[in-house]
Amino acid sequence: MVTSQLVSKSDRDRIMSDIGEAIEWLSGFGADPSGGVTRLLYSKEWLSAQKALAQHMEASGLHVCFDDCGNLYGRLEGEGISAGTLLTGSHVDTVKSGGKYDGAYGILAGIIALKYLRDNYGAPKVSLEVVSLCEEEGSRFPLTYWGSGNITGKYSLERVPDIRDRDGVELEQAMLSAGFGKGTYRSPRRHDVLGFIELHIEQGSLLERESRSIGIVNHIVGQRRYTVKVSGTANHAGTTPMDVRKDALAGACAMIQKLEEAARLEGGQFVATTGLLNVSPNLPNVIAGEVAFTVDVRDANADTLERFCREFHRCFKEIADSRELHLQIQEWMNEPPVPMHAPFNETLRNICEEYNYSYRFMNSGAGHDSQLFQAVCPTALAFVPNKDGVSHSPLEFSDPGSLADGIVTLIEWLYFYGYKGGELA
Amino acid sequence: MVTSQLVSKSDRDRIMSDIGEAIEWLSGFGADPSGGVTRLLYSKEWLSAQKALAQHMEASGLHVCFDDCGNLYGRLEGEGISAGTLLTGSHVDTVKSGGKYDGAYGILAGIIALKYLRDNYGAPKVSLEVVSLCEEEGSRFPLTYWGSGNITGKYSLERVPDIRDRDGVELEQAMLSAGFGKGTYRSPRRHDVLGFIELHIEQGSLLERESRSIGIVNHIVGQRRYTVKVSGTANHAGTTPMDVRKDALAGACAMIQKLEEAARLEGGQFVATTGLLNVSPNLPNVIAGEVAFTVDVRDANADTLERFCREFHRCFKEIADSRELHLQIQEWMNEPPVPMHAPFNETLRNICEEYNYSYRFMNSGAGHDSQLFQAVCPTALAFVPNKDGVSHSPLEFSDPGSLADGIVTLIEWLYFYGYKGGELA
Repeated sequence: MVTSQLVSKSDRDRIMSDIGEAIEWLSGFGADPSGGVTRLLYSKEWLSAQKALAQHMEASGLHVCFDDCGNLYGRLEGEGISAGTLLTGSHVDTVKSGGKYDGAYGILAGIIALKYLRDNYGAPKVSLEVVSLCEEEGSRFPLTYWGSGNITGKYSLERVPDIRDRDGVELEQAMLSAGFGKGTYRSPRRHDVLGFIELHIEQGSLLERESRSIGIVNHIVGQRRYTVKVSGTANHAGTTPMDVRKDALAGACAMIQKLEEAARLEGGQFVATTGLLNVSPNLPNVIAGEVAFTVDVRDANADTLERFCREFHRCFKEIADSRELHLQIQEWMNEPPVPMHAPFNETLRNICEEYNYSYRFMNSGAGHDSQLFQAVCPTALAFVPNKDGVSHSPLEFSDPGSLADGIVTLIEWLYFYGYKGGELA
Repeated sequence: MVTSQLVSKSDRDRIMSDIGEAIEWLSGFGADPSGGVTRLLYSKEWLSAQKALAQHMEASGLHVCFDDCGNLYGRLEGEGISAGTLLTGSHVDTVKSGGKYDGAYGILAGIIALKYLRDNYGAPKVSLEVVSLCEEEGSRFPLTYWGSGNITGKYSLERVPDIRDRDGVELEQAMLSAGFGKGTYRSPRRHDVLGFIELHIEQGSLLERESRSIGIVNHIVGQRRYTVKVSGTANHAGTTPMDVRKDALAGACAMIQKLEEAARLEGGQFVATTGLLNVSPNLPNVIAGEVAFTVDVRDANADTLERFCREFHRCFKEIADSRELHLQIQEWMNEPPVPMHAPFNETLRNICEEYNYSYRFMNSGAGHDSQLFQAVCPTALAFVPNKDGVSHSPLEFSDPGSLADGIVTLIEWLYFYGYKGGELA
């Protein structure tokens, strides 16, 4: 049990000011004129951010090292017998013209927390590390979680995926150009991580709308993604009577309507989305011959996902048949829901109650590095509110008070497991 | 009244063979490997086709001349007192990779008809001309009816529109390069046209489905075109609950569904189409922030058009309001229905009955040069069936028998007004 407040009101005020400054500082690496931040994997901006973070970690009293795929660690050596490490952090890369908080907050919170613990309590029993993960977003290359994936064994530098960015640059070439992948640094794969905790902005508006400070994540939702191709007959918009048309766009619209209707009926945090739709030939005076659109379905319950997807397949087929359209549905993502570690969450809850932070248990509708770590060690993911749920945008914002509450929670959590002997089951 | 058949069975057989050959011959100018024909205004292919047609007209015993915008005429001089001319023809330009019949048929039919009349009946009372109009499709430059528009006064070479093709070439420059617009030829504007008749393939499947030989057009439908912009809020597809979304694509789909539903209820030849739709940002995992789509509405009745458009505006607004979406509807085309000349149509009907051709009165869902001529002289438009209604495609096809029936009808019609003194009201 967490039984008393380590962090005083005045300490929290300093943390609030520190995190505000740190967020602004880090957003300078890759700042664009629109007010957004662009740090694509292995780019110049990305490299300068990682190097600056390395200096910042060092200045915060941490032992710094890179691994060979570009993840950056700051370590507070433990004095106990365990060779293992408690890890916190998030990703340093951004989407194109993204916000200042997504990813960055989790790294900077970890540095502030470790410095606070070191300054106030010295060496921990269990080694603590903060990690600035090299890649999560998949914005430059068509893969995600390159950083956490290399740590947890999903990816390996011995089999770098043969993929290219939009300019035709290979992932491996980009990595080499940035100074990684040459064996200069230690191998990314780790077997010594006893637990992982990630602080992140919610990227949604649930916490804000309920005026809560902390979201404790039960599940990262499962995701299924599909491309739906509807084929009819392109024809003259003036001379083809309504009753003989095979209009692929009208058919697609009927499907998307049904999808939305069905998703609303599920309630809770269940979501289904068509965000991409392309029409061919896409001319005002030609009936659409072909439409391709995506379906993105997410829920924390694997059975619900399975049932819903079976049902929308059936419903789409029915619509296609009744309109004499050809239908093709291709699944290209099927990630099951990922549960976070319940005892870690219990600790988070105790901390929130101790500090009188309004909190809630919730699911994460977005994917996070935490889901990679969950496969190899107990993992927790905690959210702080962000304004209007806006993320991946220059308008992304979280107020410093919320950011500070998250860091206080992280400090307590790391203290509980790192100093006080909380059981890492 | 048309009272006897001028064209014998054996004459019709020769006409059938002539038109088949002529269609193949003309399609050689601008033939592409896909089997399509591409003759864009003032292009090399276009120019070679017009020059070859000039020779072909001359060989058919017609007096040939170009006008200064590139329309080509073949004239059979009348012996009567009228200084006026009866005109037939269609356009020589095509869409990109279009068919062999669209436009071409009306020109070649006119040449064959005039040659037949000259060979069998000598000089007419009223001068007859066939015209190969330089442009109708709007495929190279963003304007349509450049040919008939210059003849009827909609356009003038003194005010050539300042527009460019996709390669940045100005209309005026393209015209000069092809040898027109320099005053070498006579001015395009004509005030001596007593009547115009156009033969064209239907570009629809009504005649084919009803096994009819000739379609007599009552109205060229009115057309209204709109761009509808639906704005919501782009947001994360995973973290934004269904009930707080402002999904522009879901809203647009609801509108398009309603549009189709309402158009079906109108029945007859009423049509409404969304053929173009663009989503922003158009990513699988982002709720659509903005959708722009077109609405194309066509009917022969101006009141029906007006009522329908008012109603869909109201309905779209209702959908937008209920979903808290912003709606903007911009009208960019509003062409009223154009009636063809009823006495001309009565003559066409008499001819069809004399020859026992199955015919029907109908509306044209597509625009034609005839609508330009209708503004300045009595005008008729007659259709022959084409296979499966497919047009603007290499697969465009009409059987030679249908083409011949159309030409026989044209011969009779020109004879009635040109030789027999049928009244040109």
